[in-house]
Amino acid sequence: MKKIFFTPGPSQLYPTVSKHIEKAMQEDIGSISHRSAQFQEIYKDLIQSLKKLLSIPEDYHIFITGSGTEAMERIVQNCVENYSFHFVNGSFAKRFFIIANDSGKSPVSVEVPVDQKFNFKEIEIPENIELIAFTQNETSSGTQIPVEEITAVAKKYPKTLIAVDIVSAVPYVDLDYKKVDIAFFSVQKLFGLPAGLGLMIVSPRATKKAEMLEDKKIDIGSYHSFPKLLQYEQKQQTHETPPVLHMYLLGKVVTDMQKKGIENIREEIEKKASLLYDFLDQQDRITPFVKEMASRSQTVIVVDIEKTDKDVKKLLAKKGFIVGSGYGKNKTTQIRIANFPAHAVQDFKNLIRELKTL
Amino acid sequence: MKKIFFTPGPSQLYPTVSKHIEKAMQEDIGSISHRSAQFQEIYKDLIQSLKKLLSIPEDYHIFITGSGTEAMERIVQNCVENYSFHFVNGSFAKRFFIIANDSGKSPVSVEVPVDQKFNFKEIEIPENIELIAFTQNETSSGTQIPVEEITAVAKKYPKTLIAVDIVSAVPYVDLDYKKVDIAFFSVQKLFGLPAGLGLMIVSPRATKKAEMLEDKKIDIGSYHSFPKLLQYEQKQQTHETPPVLHMYLLGKVVTDMQKKGIENIREEIEKKASLLYDFLDQQDRITPFVKEMASRSQTVIVVDIEKTDKDVKKLLAKKGFIVGSGYGKNKTTQIRIANFPAHAVQDFKNLIRELKTL
Repeated sequence: MKKIFFTPGPSQLYPTVSKHIEKAMQEDIGSISHRSAQFQEIYKDLIQSLKKLLSIPEDYHIFITGSGTEAMERIVQNCVENYSFHFVNGSFAKRFFIIANDSGKSPVSVEVPVDQKFNFKEIEIPENIELIAFTQNETSSGTQIPVEEITAVAKKYPKTLIAVDIVSAVPYVDLDYKKVDIAFFSVQKLFGLPAGLGLMIVSPRATKKAEMLEDKKIDIGSYHSFPKLLQYEQKQQTHETPPVLHMYLLGKVVTDMQKKGIENIREEIEKKASLLYDFLDQQDRITPFVKEMASRSQTVIVVDIEKTDKDVKKLLAKKGFIVGSGYGKNKTTQIRIANFPAHAVQDFKNLIRELKTL
Repeated sequence: MKKIFFTPGPSQLYPTVSKHIEKAMQEDIGSISHRSAQFQEIYKDLIQSLKKLLSIPEDYHIFITGSGTEAMERIVQNCVENYSFHFVNGSFAKRFFIIANDSGKSPVSVEVPVDQKFNFKEIEIPENIELIAFTQNETSSGTQIPVEEITAVAKKYPKTLIAVDIVSAVPYVDLDYKKVDIAFFSVQKLFGLPAGLGLMIVSPRATKKAEMLEDKKIDIGSYHSFPKLLQYEQKQQTHETPPVLHMYLLGKVVTDMQKKGIENIREEIEKKASLLYDFLDQQDRITPFVKEMASRSQTVIVVDIEKTDKDVKKLLAKKGFIVGSGYGKNKTTQIRIANFPAHAVQDFKNLIRELKTL
């Protein structure tokens, strides 16, 4: 039986990926040198197509890392001398905070229960804060922070760097990149690729901060410091041998998405999210975890299954629908359903049909 | 025309790779969760098969990183409070030194011209050195350090941690892992995979050192500190979402190599190296860069092409033979030829036939 993965990443591969892998094998993409003109073209194409798809300002940089988690570490190393501020509404926001702490910084956080929202207007951020970190979409709890709230905070603190985790939201999330300094993501979520590549979208202001810290002899890391990443990005190379095949595949998928149209992709995701939330809102035993409309993630939908005595994950798997477990302590009391561009409207209708039988 | 890549990594893919990728796609390896039992099996299989192929001691750990370059950074962060000692005989040994320096340590080095060897017996290593770093096989210059010389130094300094870069030598190099503390490599060299995965083989003594540094509040990094890597390795997981597909493929290729037999692989590499060096030793215009027999790398063969006025790389490429440029400042005066398990004896005979026409 053909499976379909609704896991929140790694997830269902984007429908064109297998074709692109085949082509990549024919074209020896796994063998080409990362110092070749052919590789430089791949990196350049990737930068250009991403900037186009997401409307990223021309002077922003696209840096290559291994994962979203690595991005968190590199951001605090390169943009924070002492104090970062973290809006913590789930496990990944918490991870960013812990990484700042483990990296020798003194992070500050404001925390809300995962199903509740921040009252941004009432939160005063101290003057000494160098970077404010948001997790726009919390993969662990299925909550989202509306982008307008993020850009409003950015506007209120114009001197402070703004970092946004968009791992499980991009390219759905319509973020105004010029209003933030760093946004980061990995490819195994909405881009529908195998895991192994993380990217950072970085403003000139953020690279300047890193250079300033370097001048002050603050440890900003070595081969993946922003100045090193910048130096290599400018010649469309990387210091280390990067995941060339992943970069090639991402460039191809971004181009496919560009052809489909970013508006169509966003509309389709909202349509699928509505189908599922509307259905769940009418149920008694399997219900949406996030009650508040504006906080509901469109891309990762978390479902409370405590009131049913059935093994939901297993029953769905028997029909070929692979959904995610709840995160952490909610492993058995919740399921998580990804709503990514790789999932068709019909896939969602089929899934809902199965959910009805539970 | 079908190309064959003799580039020193990324290089020709191991012959079974395309079959394994096809199978991986059928089995949805790109979609499975990194928290699933299926992933844990992949990691466990990889650890077991690597330990078997390379005769790695049971109590050593296999940690997942993004690249060999990342491994260098994590090693100095986790094993060095102040002083590392680097035997520098080329660009990658130098990179390790620079990364130690950029990571805020005070590395010391002894440097020899890239075509000359160290006189290990005459080099006294200061008492305060915490880690000695070797680049067993220098991909940049095609030189190698005989493993006996490395283990002799290790024996002379029993209290000092020993790190060995085996990036472009493993599994050819017959290193006695229990005599060293850390060996690291990436998969785009002799294992013949697309780039994007680096591994560290780590002794219990090295993880203890990291824990000691952590207790002393030394910055050992965050999500890829040895204690974090250890904590996750013990449950066959990783903190971040790792390159699952690469890990799966490496496990498969290691098993294929195990079936072929490590001795056969090593003998074949030596046979191909002899064919090429013997041929080059008889030439006037294209000659081996490394003259001294014991220092000649068996896996990366560097050829001086200064005396020919032909564009060697381009002429070979026309016939489908893709060789590497010289490294750094030798970009146009040398070529580099990889001798990896993916290259058959017949491939080398064909290449030599073409070299004869130059």
